[in-house]
Amino acid sequence: MFEKDMHFALLLDAYGDLLSEHRREIFELYYSEDLSLSEIAENTGISRQGVRESIKKTESELLRWEEKLGLVARQEALHTDAERHAALLESLSAALPQDRKPIADEVVRYLRTLHF
Amino acid sequence: MFEKDMHFALLLDAYGDLLSEHRREIFELYYSEDLSLSEIAENTGISRQGVRESIKKTESELLRWEEKLGLVARQEALHTDAERHAALLESLSAALPQDRKPIADEVVRYLRTLHF
Repeated sequence: MFEKDMHFALLLDAYGDLLSEHRREIFELYYSEDLSLSEIAENTGISRQGVRESIKKTESELLRWEEKLGLVARQEALHTDAERHAALLESLSAALPQDRKPIADEVVRYLRTLHF
Repeated sequence: MFEKDMHFALLLDAYGDLLSEHRREIFELYYSEDLSLSEIAENTGISRQGVRESIKKTESELLRWEEKLGLVARQEALHTDAERHAALLESLSAALPQDRKPIADEVVRYLRTLHF
């Protein structure tokens, strides 16, 4: 057996569209639906070993894409930077006249929900 | 002959790391160095037809990745949204006391140089 590493759920979110439908389905049953290898084997009619190999291959592929493109790491960096600037901007709010605060609030909200 | 479509230069920036070194090199000679097919054939020792096929394959692959992951489109959307919020925030600057303006300026600068 191998431990389920939840980092793969993030990688699946980022790169899932690059996977073949078949490989993606098996991977989702394992990581999103939290089924066991045996349960997936039963549900899909593939051998338990086949399921295991498919998941291992998908893991390698996801890791390779992240190594090359770094989408998950870049998303995390984007959130951290955006949050830092949202906090800076929030600290200005008290210095603004009442009628301008909503504009600052809107930019703060934008920064806090920023995603790629 | 086929027209050089400069959209591919952006796609190359976004996905180039996923290409094999060989295919990437040919593609860069064509799109970044602006060499002709014949010049690339001479430089690399591949036939002109081989160069052409390699470039066509790379184009298909880049288009497929963009269709699946949309990095270039998402980067463009990110820039548009960030610029809109930078402009909003800039409009607040006059309402801020002198000593707080640098903070707003910093957030404006962050939004204007934001990239993924």
